[in-house]
Formats: sequence, structure tokens, C-alpha cells
Amino acid sequence: VSSAYVSQGSQACARRGKLLTTLLSERRLPRAGWDDKSIEALIAELAAMDSNNFLDNVGVGEREARVHSRLVARRHYHLAHGVGRSGDVAAEQPKAAGSSLIVKLTNLLVADALKIAGMADAGPALVLPLATGMTLTLTLLAIKKFRPATARKVVWLRLDQKTCVKAVLSAGYELIVVEPRIVVGDQLETDVDAVERAVVETCGGAANVACVVTSTSGFAPRACDDVVAVAKACARLDVGHVINNAYGVQSKARSMYTLVPAWRRGRVDAVVQSTDKNFMVPVGGAVVTSGRENTRVVEEVRKAYPGRASIAPVLDLFITLLGMGEDGWRKLLDDRDVVYAYMKRKLAEVAAEEGERLLETPANPISIGFSLESLARGLGEDVDGTKISFFGSMLFSRCVSGTRVVAPGVRQTIGGVTFDGWGASCSAYPAGPYFTAAAAIGTTTEDVDRFCAKLKSAFKDFRKKHSRKRGGGGGAEE
Amino acid sequence: VSSAYVSQGSQACARRGKLLTTLLSERRLPRAGWDDKSIEALIAELAAMDSNNFLDNVGVGEREARVHSRLVARRHYHLAHGVGRSGDVAAEQPKAAGSSLIVKLTNLLVADALKIAGMADAGPALVLPLATGMTLTLTLLAIKKFRPATARKVVWLRLDQKTCVKAVLSAGYELIVVEPRIVVGDQLETDVDAVERAVVETCGGAANVACVVTSTSGFAPRACDDVVAVAKACARLDVGHVINNAYGVQSKARSMYTLVPAWRRGRVDAVVQSTDKNFMVPVGGAVVTSGRENTRVVEEVRKAYPGRASIAPVLDLFITLLGMGEDGWRKLLDDRDVVYAYMKRKLAEVAAEEGERLLETPANPISIGFSLESLARGLGEDVDGTKISFFGSMLFSRCVSGTRVVAPGVRQTIGGVTFDGWGASCSAYPAGPYFTAAAAIGTTTEDVDRFCAKLKSAFKDFRKKHSRKRGGGGGAEE
Amino acid sequence: VSSAYVSQGSQACARRGKLLTTLLSERRLPRAGWDDKSIEALIAELAAMDSNNFLDNVGVGEREARVHSRLVARRHYHLAHGVGRSGDVAAEQPKAAGSSLIVKLTNLLVADALKIAGMADAGPALVLPLATGMTLTLTLLAIKKFRPATARKVVWLRLDQKTCVKAVLSAGYELIVVEPRIVVGDQLETDVDAVERAVVETCGGAANVACVVTSTSGFAPRACDDVVAVAKACARLDVGHVINNAYGVQSKARSMYTLVPAWRRGRVDAVVQSTDKNFMVPVGGAVVTSGRENTRVVEEVRKAYPGRASIAPVLDLFITLLGMGEDGWRKLLDDRDVVYAYMKRKLAEVAAEEGERLLETPANPISIGFSLESLARGLGEDVDGTKISFFGSMLFSRCVSGTRVVAPGVRQTIGGVTFDGWGASCSAYPAGPYFTAAAAIGTTTEDVDRFCAKLKSAFKDFRKKHSRKRGGGGGAEE
Amino acid sequence: VSSAYVSQGSQACARRGKLLTTLLSERRLPRAGWDDKSIEALIAELAAMDSNNFLDNVGVGEREARVHSRLVARRHYHLAHGVGRSGDVAAEQPKAAGSSLIVKLTNLLVADALKIAGMADAGPALVLPLATGMTLTLTLLAIKKFRPATARKVVWLRLDQKTCVKAVLSAGYELIVVEPRIVVGDQLETDVDAVERAVVETCGGAANVACVVTSTSGFAPRACDDVVAVAKACARLDVGHVINNAYGVQSKARSMYTLVPAWRRGRVDAVVQSTDKNFMVPVGGAVVTSGRENTRVVEEVRKAYPGRASIAPVLDLFITLLGMGEDGWRKLLDDRDVVYAYMKRKLAEVAAEEGERLLETPANPISIGFSLESLARGLGEDVDGTKISFFGSMLFSRCVSGTRVVAPGVRQTIGGVTFDGWGASCSAYPAGPYFTAAAAIGTTTEDVDRFCAKLKSAFKDFRKKHSRKRGGGGGAEE
Repeated sequence: VSSAYVSQGSQACARRGKLLTTLLSERRLPRAGWDDKSIEALIAELAAMDSNNFLDNVGVGEREARVHSRLVARRHYHLAHGVGRSGDVAAEQPKAAGSSLIVKLTNLLVADALKIAGMADAGPALVLPLATGMTLTLTLLAIKKFRPATARKVVWLRLDQKTCVKAVLSAGYELIVVEPRIVVGDQLETDVDAVERAVVETCGGAANVACVVTSTSGFAPRACDDVVAVAKACARLDVGHVINNAYGVQSKARSMYTLVPAWRRGRVDAVVQSTDKNFMVPVGGAVVTSGRENTRVVEEVRKAYPGRASIAPVLDLFITLLGMGEDGWRKLLDDRDVVYAYMKRKLAEVAAEEGERLLETPANPISIGFSLESLARGLGEDVDGTKISFFGSMLFSRCVSGTRVVAPGVRQTIGGVTFDGWGASCSAYPAGPYFTAAAAIGTTTEDVDRFCAKLKSAFKDFRKKHSRKRGGGGGAEE
Repeated sequence: VSSAYVSQGSQACARRGKLLTTLLSERRLPRAGWDDKSIEALIAELAAMDSNNFLDNVGVGEREARVHSRLVARRHYHLAHGVGRSGDVAAEQPKAAGSSLIVKLTNLLVADALKIAGMADAGPALVLPLATGMTLTLTLLAIKKFRPATARKVVWLRLDQKTCVKAVLSAGYELIVVEPRIVVGDQLETDVDAVERAVVETCGGAANVACVVTSTSGFAPRACDDVVAVAKACARLDVGHVINNAYGVQSKARSMYTLVPAWRRGRVDAVVQSTDKNFMVPVGGAVVTSGRENTRVVEEVRKAYPGRASIAPVLDLFITLLGMGEDGWRKLLDDRDVVYAYMKRKLAEVAAEEGERLLETPANPISIGFSLESLARGLGEDVDGTKISFFGSMLFSRCVSGTRVVAPGVRQTIGGVTFDGWGASCSAYPAGPYFTAAAAIGTTTEDVDRFCAKLKSAFKDFRKKHSRKRGGGGGAEE
Repeated sequence: VSSAYVSQGSQACARRGKLLTTLLSERRLPRAGWDDKSIEALIAELAAMDSNNFLDNVGVGEREARVHSRLVARRHYHLAHGVGRSGDVAAEQPKAAGSSLIVKLTNLLVADALKIAGMADAGPALVLPLATGMTLTLTLLAIKKFRPATARKVVWLRLDQKTCVKAVLSAGYELIVVEPRIVVGDQLETDVDAVERAVVETCGGAANVACVVTSTSGFAPRACDDVVAVAKACARLDVGHVINNAYGVQSKARSMYTLVPAWRRGRVDAVVQSTDKNFMVPVGGAVVTSGRENTRVVEEVRKAYPGRASIAPVLDLFITLLGMGEDGWRKLLDDRDVVYAYMKRKLAEVAAEEGERLLETPANPISIGFSLESLARGLGEDVDGTKISFFGSMLFSRCVSGTRVVAPGVRQTIGGVTFDGWGASCSAYPAGPYFTAAAAIGTTTEDVDRFCAKLKSAFKDFRKKHSRKRGGGGGAEE
Repeated sequence: VSSAYVSQGSQACARRGKLLTTLLSERRLPRAGWDDKSIEALIAELAAMDSNNFLDNVGVGEREARVHSRLVARRHYHLAHGVGRSGDVAAEQPKAAGSSLIVKLTNLLVADALKIAGMADAGPALVLPLATGMTLTLTLLAIKKFRPATARKVVWLRLDQKTCVKAVLSAGYELIVVEPRIVVGDQLETDVDAVERAVVETCGGAANVACVVTSTSGFAPRACDDVVAVAKACARLDVGHVINNAYGVQSKARSMYTLVPAWRRGRVDAVVQSTDKNFMVPVGGAVVTSGRENTRVVEEVRKAYPGRASIAPVLDLFITLLGMGEDGWRKLLDDRDVVYAYMKRKLAEVAAEEGERLLETPANPISIGFSLESLARGLGEDVDGTKISFFGSMLFSRCVSGTRVVAPGVRQTIGGVTFDGWGASCSAYPAGPYFTAAAAIGTTTEDVDRFCAKLKSAFKDFRKKHSRKRGGGGGAEE
């Protein structure tokens, strides 16, 4: 083959190779997303640096990353050593230089993505191959090291999603629940005074409290917590503060801009966010970070993690962030803001048509509450919500997933803790039944249009047969 | 296309479809392993049952399993909802019937695989998408529920691998170390009396002890623990007992047959084993099980797991077990026994040639110790082991991975706990330096031959330049 | 797993399955393109109907579609029997019902795609796993059956691309070249009188001529042939007529609408078009069709094809057409029209800046000629075009592929036939040097912008160093 | 990541890279087959050298290898330019340096594979992306250039497989059939005298004959042709000689060792062999070669091929040969010899049990004839074979593919040529009905065992219901 052609081709390979060099030196999201070919070429190159992929390796240890199934080997790009060592989940593995590089780069890329999403002055980000709940458990276990031995309670600002409750209990703490209060419209807001009272009075002082757990994302009518006020209170009280920023990364305007003043002006020990909910990867990872002035809990999580872990969630994030690039990531964030406004407008139209209304929750930038009061009234005597919750099943059977019908008066016990008015994040939420829907990252205006059409049809059918059937809440979200 | 040909083809499709029906009804390993096509066809069918793959789904929740990258979606077969719900890591997800089926089937298949490997009378098996260390932490957290509030200590039979230490400390326990003793040859064995003394005297009684942790696999000269004797003691003392069966599944003759009498005749709360080390999948999963008479801790682990988790390690195991089938799995187990004997014989030959010897450890069926005393003597004054540990680096740079050189007198501190004689699982192991090698599942006689050749060459080179260089222990295993 | 969830999942599978039923019953492009998952699920299902994929097949023939490499098996979705039987390239294979269905469906889908692109009243379409040139050869061989034994000549309307010349010669014919003429602007048009003279005078009558070969796509300044006039002449003269519609499918307005009147009002024996150039698949296939009143040559091609052939080009087209759907295909066609107009406008602007002009060729809807006369004048004495052709190399080394610089006065001999003024499709094209560029299907306005930028930079650099170097025409197209 | 680990990893990459360098310098099969990872890494690297994969390419030609479907792009590793240019099917493409290298390397690797299989002193091998039949047509077209214009006939040694007949007719030749004769046992052998008579008498001399076509593989009772004797005769007569070595490569002992003396001592213009039948790739390619003293026809095929072609069959072969390596290829050849002997022995046993016998055909090393005379006698009056041919359908419906039942007295017309006694390669084959089975490359002894079991069951069932049904020959091979 003529040398001119080959040289042109080799230059092309070199240009592609330059992508990697740039990545390694800049250590942040590439401006434009990489194409799939470049991503796979990079992973193949990194995988070749793991000892199980050395051509002439002889493994005589008890864990040599032998993979029996070709299908499995292939789907993991022959990366089989996992991440971490017993000393540190972010540590390098001698046998797996390539996997180790992927871990390091992913942590750097995700830190950059968080920064772009508004999280200024953050310390290092740590991606864990554990979903949000388990990551909260680990964080709560790690925080023990910095609290007195007596600190066996966690003060939690109620937000009705089981995972956080389980996370606290699994870590061996006693859960102290603080209810939100209503200040504006239908919105349930942070009751900072109640938090302070819980620490000082209920728990008997900061020495008995490991930390306060707040949330910056959740179902309407719950607002994002006022994490700045809580952070200041925690600093004052000298008590830990963990923020569950589950899917808050995707909302620049609200969630992210409250985090920065929180750790600048108050105390924040760790912020935990989901990878699947924010970065559109399969379930399985979370990111822990904090302000750069207070990184010891994140470090302790890293060091306390016992042993190795799957690389899969890290690799998914690595691939995704490279594929998005900075421009793609910014666009996704911007698009979400637009779709949220669109969904709000469209749902308000449907609500008006159906004699319902949207709940007024200005401080929740993702989830929207839609009243079902008029529909419930049509059911007459049904006070316990069984029938109205069937509305969720109707939506689910119409292939609408993700709505969550909340009927008043449900009592729920989780790990021995009892909650009244479960679903509304409040023991005595004054409004009637409603459902929530979210404009999460990746939702399109087309999704909204199809949702509204199905919603109208569900209203129509529900009214038609409301007294004929009883059913479960197939569409309920947890 | 003529109907005769199509009908022949359709019958073929039906025969393939029957594989699934058989799997669902028999709920155990297929006799013969499935071919890759059948496996992928099954996964595609199951994935199509998850709501994110419905053709006309509209997702308006905060977690809709949207996957941004095609590469990521593809490698996970479009399974993106993960496993578990906040209530239970093995629970069904309404949005993900397919993923839920995979989880259930995998738990059943792995239970069958354990049974085939000798684990009779076991209760349900629970696959966790967490490696062994983190799974031990979770198990130790779960056991709290069944122990008095004062039970803040864990008695651990020393086996020098950092992960277990970290797992105990991460769970918030105090670690009480029991040293092994030498009874036969070079072998370090379970000191049951010392265990009892630790519980009664050191800890001040069973009420202060959550559980005893034993191990059934580990580096020579450590023997597998006498779990039957410990199980009886735990029953007598009324204290919990967790067995770290890390890579013990692969050794039928020893590890597995000791588990059954242990839970028949004594107390065993949970047995934890690695998926990667036993089933040849990438790092990232573990299996918890127990005897069928005492399944409450395994259930509590399942229920206490907060939130969702990655399906990746479960899916890897599902694919692998279907691909192996019962015949393949039995053959792998049988082959390992053969290779272990072969490695022992071949290493003994090399040892004889080099003036060394194999450590005599009849109760360790996987790991083999090979003395480096004669080599060390050649180094003269080097008493601290720095030089001899360079032998491991030499092997690693020859593409031998997995050996572990142990020099006497190393002190190591892990999470505040200090260990003398680190590496040998004993504060005062009488023998000189040695290295270990393992005949783990998947190792071939060809591997052994290549290892022996490289080993001999390393001996030769080491002797040539022993006083010229100093290096680190690149090949050490953790 | 609860039956409600499974039933929802099964319904989802059923909806996906319905896609196939609809395809089999409608036998035309789906309105909306299929997603990749549905396409792969369909292919997997069809592949399972081929005997080599039967679970319990025993092959004892000499060709049993055994595939040695897993990589190869996988990339072909385990389809290995190819297409065709010795009797007919579109025939069913008893051993390969699935492959046979793919062939039949692809022929139907491509016929529909041609119809959408404007080809009304066409007979069946036949996809051959051969590129355009080889398909022309086969067509010319097939036409023999319907011509007298003396018909050893083919009259070809010159269009300077080697493949068609080779196709005629390889089929064993003598090539009779008819030059185009200039009527309007710079455009080279069909000289119908010359065609008639060639048949009657040069060849000595229709009995000595197998057919006339015209073209409906080609490089400017060549116009698309007036195939209606030639078709009428062929009908009158009773001589065959094959239309090389290489990449004409993509231009509805011109190429396609001339074909329909051609076969309605005159004689057309076969129309050959490329799959890669029109449908954006890898090189390797072509489609033969004709008006529905005269399908015998297409049938003869099908039947005369000796033996089997690769299914790869057919499968590529199958996947692509399902993925495009009718909407996607229409959009691609419409977008191309827009981009062509855009490219023309933008190139005219560059030409004006550089003192050049676009060739005036209204009857070529794809290719655009751009004069290099002013540039050449700057070179002074260089009359032979060597230097000016270096302009093409400069573009190629700037990663512009596909331009073709034509300098006057080149003589080229192909298979013993000599052509003067090679490149311009005319022995004595009056204009000076020029280059061509095409707005082919898939070209974007962004491509055009980047091309114009690189073009301007090439002009600048060429002028800077015009007398320093000599080079080859790396960018020339064949 | 520590530099020591990275450096170890980089060395590993370098060792893998060396594979390619070795391949490019040695230009023959690697001794040991490559693993899949190395193969895919190489292809990715080569693909990156094609202009469509340049990161910043702008395509403005009419064929820019744009690929619409990601599935298609992926399965072809983004190789989309095909092979060849209009001047030469093995020529380099300026736009596709990577594809061009693959073509060149594949031709070299396959030449080496042929040499290993016994084909000494061969000239270059040319892989065409066309199956055997179409390749024969092209070869017969190419040979015209070296024969007088009057040479319009092809003398063919009858072997009843339609493809070769179609190949001759499609190339525009008149077919002259020479029947074989019986010399030994049941075997049909080459009648060299009849060949000479056909050329001299039937055709009226060598000037009217393009070539003689012989075969070195085919269904028993046909022997491999005595190509040495025919080659000598062709040299003497000064007439072309093309050998159809369809699946003869796989039989070293017979087919291949006859080719070498044929081209050493006589005339051989071209030898054509199938890629799928010999190298276990999907249908779609063939290899043309010849003795190194007479390579002009192969060259002419290369040069006469009009335009481009699919790279798929070439790439399949490239992947497969790299994956096999020399050792794997030799082993496949050796194993086939063993399985052939095994099949012969096992079938003889079944024949004895069923009152049948194997046809005595010592000069056919692949295909075995098994008499059905006793079975047919049981049918009584059935003289036309309709009933006995149903035996083939019974085998097919038992998932036995590839057997071919031949009943006496079938008349078949192909392209106007009529054959009596079709199937047996002889107008008046004296024996009764029989079927053939083949021990082709890749067949295993397990296949043979399963075949014999199914065969016995078919005998049993046939006898049971012989007079009840009539059916077609679904299992017949073409």
C-alpha cells in the first residue's frame, strides 16, 4: 500500500491519539463529546494495561480476573479487576494500571461536570459503585470517626422516600425525624428551628448527634431544603451535616447554587448524588463530594471502604461523560430547565380542563404536584385513598411510568419507625390527594405532550368506571 | 418463502424458547451450558419487559432508566433500572419485571451452584452487587439486630488480608484478634480455646460480642479454620458466627464439606463468598447464604440494604452460570483439584532444585507456601526482608501475577489496629521468608508450567544480582 | 415476580412482536424507523430459523455454515448461509429460512424506497451483493439471452468513470463510445442523433448491438442523460437499453422522474443503482430494477447468477431501511436537495472571491463544477495540468475527500480503449481546468461550511507556493 | 497512578503492538492464533486509517462511506469503503489505506494457508468477495483474453452441482459435457480420452475451446478428477484449464497434492476455491490462484473486475485466519482427516445393520455414498425414486442437514442443457439409490455419532410408514 496513503492514515490515528493525551493533561470534560469509536479505542488501550490482558501473563493468585464467559468479558471490555484495594476504594491496583487510570479520570471528569453544573469550590469528587442509599450508609458510617462515641442519632428532615430512612438505620443510628412546615402556597419547607430543637432537646445535645441529613431534591410539595440555613445551624451547634443531593445536580438554578453558599457559610460534611438520576447511566453509582475546605469525610469514605468493588458504574460514567463532553452536558442541563417550564405550563392546562390545579411549590425545580381533589370528590365516600391510588395504576398500564399518587392518611412503618401521612413528607398535609410528575434530565417536550394526552385519557376513563374497580399503586415510585 | 422451511425454522425457535421455560420451571443450572446466542436471546427478551424498553413508554419520574450513551445501553443489554427497591434488595421493581426476574433466577442458580459444590442444606442464596468486603460489612451491620445493644465487638481469627479488618471497622465494631497456632508441620490452625477465651475473658462475655468471624480460604501457611469447632463454641456461648468463605466455594473437598457440619452441628449466621473468585466473573459481587435452619441474618441483609444497586454483577453471574451449566461447573471444580495437585508436585520439584521446600499445610487446599530461606541466607545480613521482597517484583515484571512474598518481622497498622509479623497471619511465625501461590479455579496445568519456568529464571537472576538492587513488593496481593 | 408486572412486560414484548407481523403483512418501509433493539431482536429471531442455528442440528454436508471465529459469527448475527441457490440468487434456501426471509423482505423494502424516491410503475427490485460495476456486467451478460448472437457491441454514452467501461469489457462486449455535446452553458448533454448513428452506422445495425448504456448521475459538467429520448430511440431501433442510475436515486427531481417516462414511453431493460451511494451502507451492493412492463432482464439476472453470495450487503440494507423508515428516508432525500442548493450558493461565493466561477450545468442535480482557470493562469506555462492537479492533493491532505480536479488534455487507455480529454467526459471540452464536488445524500450544511473554509485556505496556499512543487492527484475519484 | 504500574501496562501494550509489526513483516499466518482482543484492536487501528473515520474529514464526493445505521457501522468495524478501485479489485484506495492493507494482508495470509494445506509453488492468491460460482464466471470471462475469438465453448467434466453449469452459461459459453467412467468399485473417474475427443472432435479443435473445467471435490461416487492427466492433455492440446477446487483445500492428501503436479507437469490457468467451505466463514468469498509459472489469468481476473466490492468476505477471512493461526489451521486439517475415517467406519457399521453398504469410492476423500437399495426394494414398485427421496426429508426434519438422496432416473434441465441421471454425475449410473454425507472441515466425531443415531431412527421410521406418504427432497444440497 502506497506510503502516501498510509501516512495520511497514520496522521489520522495520531489525531485520534491526541484526544487521549489532551484528556490526561487537561483532566476535565472535553469541550465536544467524543465519538463512540474514540471512546472504545481508549478503553481498549487502557484495558490492555491490566495484567489479565497481558499477552503472556501467568496468574497464580487467588484473584486473577479470569473471566469465564466471553459475553461477560466483552461487555466489560475485558476490565475485570474491579476498582480499589483493601486500603482505599480509589487506590491504584498494581495488577490493573488501566482500570486504575479509568477510576482516577472518572473522578476528575465528574468533578468537572459538577463544577459546570454550578458546584463551585468543591473538593475532590469520589464516584462509588454503590447507589445513593448505600453511599449514604457508608458516609454515615465514615462520619462516626469525627463524632463522639455517644453520637448515635441522626436528625433527618423528613422527605418521604424509604431509602434515606433505611440508609440511616442500616448504619446503626437512631432516626430523629423533623417535619417540614408550610410557609408559602402548598409548599413544605425546612423548619430550621425544629432542627435545632431536635438536636438540643430531643437528642439531648450535639454530642449525641452524628449529623443532620438534608435533601435538595424530592417530590413536590416538598421544597428543596434550605441547606444554607441548616449548614449555619450545624456549624453553630457543632454537629455534622450530610446533604442528600440525590438528583439535584440536574437543577443548576436551585439545588446547586444553594450548595455553594452552604459550604462557604456553614457546615457541610458530605454531599451525595446519584449517577443514574443525574448523568443518565444505569442504576449503580453515586458521587460523594464536599466543599474544598472540609474534605475529611469524603476521604474517610474512600479509605474506610472495605475491599474492592465493581468497575461497571464507574466505567458507565466514564463513557457517558466522554460522550457528552462539556457542550453536551451543558445542553442537557439547559434543556431540562426548558422542559420543566414546558411541563408545568402543559400540566396546568390539563389541570384547568379537569377541574384540578397544580400545587404551588416554587422551591421545587423538578417535581410537580397535580391535585386529584376534584376527581376524589367524584368518588364520594372514599376517604382512605384506595380508589384514588388506582389512578396511578391506570397511568402505568397506559405506559406512563414515574407518576406517584399520594392519598392522605396513609400510615407506613419502616424499620420500626412509623410515619403518618406517608407520601406527602408531612404527618398532616392539609391538601387532598394529588400526584407528582417530574421533568428530569433527558425528558423531552415530546414526552410531555404524550404524557398529557395519556393523562387526559386516564381522567376520562377513571371518571367512567370510578366505582367499579379497586387496585394497587403499580406506578408508585420508590 | 415456502411454508415448509419456515415451519422448520419456527420449530427451531420453539426449541430455543423451551430453554427458558425449562429454566423457569426447574430453577436450577441447566445440565449443559447454554450457547451465547441463547443467553443473549433470553436477556433481550427479559430486557424488553423493563419499562424503559417499552416501545411507547413515557417516563415522568425522577428515575426512568434513561441511558445517554449507546455504548453503555448496549453493554448492559438495555437493563438500566438496577436491582432492588428501597424495601429490599431482592424485591421486584414494578418498572422492571425483566430485571426482577434476572435477580430471582440468579439467586436460584447460584444456590444450585453452591449445592453442587457441596453446600448441602443451605437456605436461600442472596447475590449482592458488592464485593466480599462490603458484603461482610453489611452482614455485620445486619447481625446487630439480633444481638444486644452492648455487642460492640467482633472476634476475628487472624488471617492477614486487610479487607476483613476494614469490613469489621467500617461496620463500627471493635476488632478482637485471635491468633492461630501451629499443630502440624508449618500450618497455622484454629485455636478454639483462644476463641472462647476471647469471648469470655477479653470481651467480658457474649453480650459484648456481635459475632466471631472465621475464614475457610486464605494464604498458606494458614489453614482453613475449623469452622465446625468454632460453630459449636458459638452455639455454646450464644454468640453470632459469620464465615468468610471468600474463595472457598471452589474447593469442595475441604471448605465446603466443613460448612455443612458447621451449620448442622453448631451456629452459623451467615457465610459470605466472592463471585469473582469462585465463579470467574469480574470483581463486584458476593453471595451471602447460611444453613436452612438459620436464615434470618441473610433475610435481614436483604431487607436492610438501603435502596437500589447495580445489576451488572448479578447479570454477569447469570450469564456465566447459564453458560457453564451444571456439567461445566462440575468440570471446573474437578479440574481445579487436579491442577492444585499438579502445582504442588511441580513446585516441590522446583523447590528441591533451588534448595527450598514447600510449607507443609495439609489443610489449605488452594494456596501453597514456598520457602525462600535458602535464597535469603544468600543475602547475608538482610534481616528485615526488604531485599527478599524484591523477589516478588521480579516475578511480577516477568508477568507472573498473584504471588505474595512474606518476609518475617513486618509491622502493619490498619485502622488503628497493629499487627506484628504481617503477612503470615501470626505475630511470631517461626519459619523464614516464603512466597505463596494459588491454584485457583480456572488455573491450567499450562499456567503451572509457565509459572515454574519463570520462577526458575527468577531464582537464577535473583542470585546473580541479589546485592545490587532494592525494590518494592509490586506483586504483593491485597 | 408478581404476575401484574410480568403481564405488563409481556404486553410490551407483544407490542414489539407486532412490529414484525406488520412488516410481514405490509411489506413496505415502516412509517417511523425502528429502534436498534427492535431491529436486532428481529434479526436474532430470523437467524434462529437458519439450520446452523438450530440447537440440535447435525450438519453432514459440505457446506453447513460452520463459522470458526466468534467475532465473525457475531458480526453477521450468526447468519452464515449467504443468499441464493444455484438456481436463482433470490431463491429460498431450505437450510436457511431466516436468511431467505431477509432477502425477500429487503427486496420489497428497497422497492418501496425506490417508489418513495419517485420511481413509479417499477417492477420488482433485486438487490445483488455486488457493487454497481459488477452488477452492470451481470446485467449485460443477462441481456445476451434476448439479443441476437451477433449482438457483440454495446453503445455507451461517455461519462468518465472507469467502472462502466470495465463492466462492458468484462462482459465480453466491444465498446462503442458516443460523445456528449454542449447545448447550454458548460453542460455536456446527450447527443441522441449520435446514439442512433452509432447503432445504425458504426455498429452496422441493431442486430450487432446488445444495448445502449446511459447514465443518470455523474460528474459535472456532464448532465444526466436524456434517458427518455434514448429510450424512445432504443424502442424505435429495437435495441436494448440499460440505465446506470448509480447514485441517481437520491435526486428525486431529476434522475428519478426521468426514469418513469423513459420506461413508460420508450424502452428500458434494466436500471442499476448503487446501495452504498444511495442508501448509506458500506460498499458492496446494487439494485437492479426496471419498469413493470419489462421485467425479463431483471428476472434473467436473478436466474443467471451462478450459485450463492454474501448476505452482508443485503443485511446492511435491511437494517438501514428498517432504521430509516419512510419518514427518515423522505427526510434524507429532502435534506439533500436543500444541501445541494446550499453548496451551490456557498461555492459560488467562494468562486467569486477567488476569481473563479461555477460551471453552468442545470441538468446535474448532485455534482458541481468549480473552475480553476484563474488559478491555472497564475501558473503560466503549465499547460499539461500536472501542477493544477496538485490542487486536489492539497485538498486531500486537508482532509477534504471526494473532490476531483480535471485538467484538460489527459489521455487515458482502459482495456485497450483510448479516451482523450479524460475526466471531462468529452474529447475536446472547451473550458479550462476545474474541480467537482458533490452534495450527496448525508452531506450536511456543516460539511459545506467546513469544505468552503478548507477550500479557501487551499487557494491561498496554492497561490503561495504554486511553482515550488509537483504532485499526484491523490484526491481523484474513481 | 504510579509510574511503575503504568510502565508495566505500557510494556504490555507494546507487546500487543508487536503482533502487528510481526504480521506486516512476516506476511504469513502467525504461528499461534491471535486472541479476539488483539484482532479487534488491529482492525480498529486499520479502520482509523480510512478517511471516513478521520476525526476531521469533510467528504464532498459522491461516495464518502457515510453509514446511516450505527448497527451497520459497528458490525463492519466502520470499514465502509469496500475493496478495489475501478482499475483493479486488489488495488489500493486513496481514501481507504486501512481497508487496502486488510486486502493485501488477507491475500498474503490465504496464500500461506493454501501452502500449509499442501499447495506448493503457487502464485499469488486473490480473494474475491464473490462465492465460487460467480468467481468461476469471472475467471471464464478473464480467460477469453488469452484465447482466440472463436473459443466459445467450455468442456466440463460432469459433476452434478448446478452452480458450475450456471457459471459457464452466465459467462456466455456453450457447455460441452464429458461424462465420467467407472474403473474401480462404484467410483466415477475422469475419462481423459473423452476430454481429448471432446476438444478435438465435438468442438472441432482447441481454437473453439476456451478451456476445460475439472473438479477436485464433489459428491461421491464421483472421484476427484485426475487433474494431472487433464493438465497434461490441455498443455498438449494448447487449451485452457480451470480447476474448480471448491472445497478441496480441506483435503491435503488428495486434492491438494494433485494440484501441484498438475501445474508443474501440465497446464493450469486458474484454481478456484470457496472461502466458506474451506475456511469456515459465512458464504460470500472465493480464492483464485494458480501455479507460480502461469499467473496471468489470476492477474486478469483482478484487473478485469469492474469497480468496487464488499470488504465483508475479505474481512471475515482476515479475522478467521488470524484467529486460527498456523497451528489452528493445521489442526483443523488434521482433525478432518481423522473425522473422515471415523465417519466412514461408523457409517459402514450402520450400513451393515441396515442391509446396506457404503459405495466404494477411494478417490473421494470427503464425501461418502451410502446405498439405499435394500430400503428401496422394500418399497416394491416405486421405480422413479419419489418415495425414496422422502428419506432425505425425514433426515432433514430430524435436524440432519447436508445429506443428499439420489434416486436413479432423474432428468434435469439447466439453462437449456439436459442431464439424465441427475445427481449421480452420470447418465447411466448402474447402482441403485443412495445418499451422500460429507466429513467436511469442522465436523466432529460427536456430529458423526449424533448423525448415526438419527440415521438409524430414520431407517426405522421409514420402514414403518414407507407406503403412507410422499414428500419432496427438502434436504437436497445445491
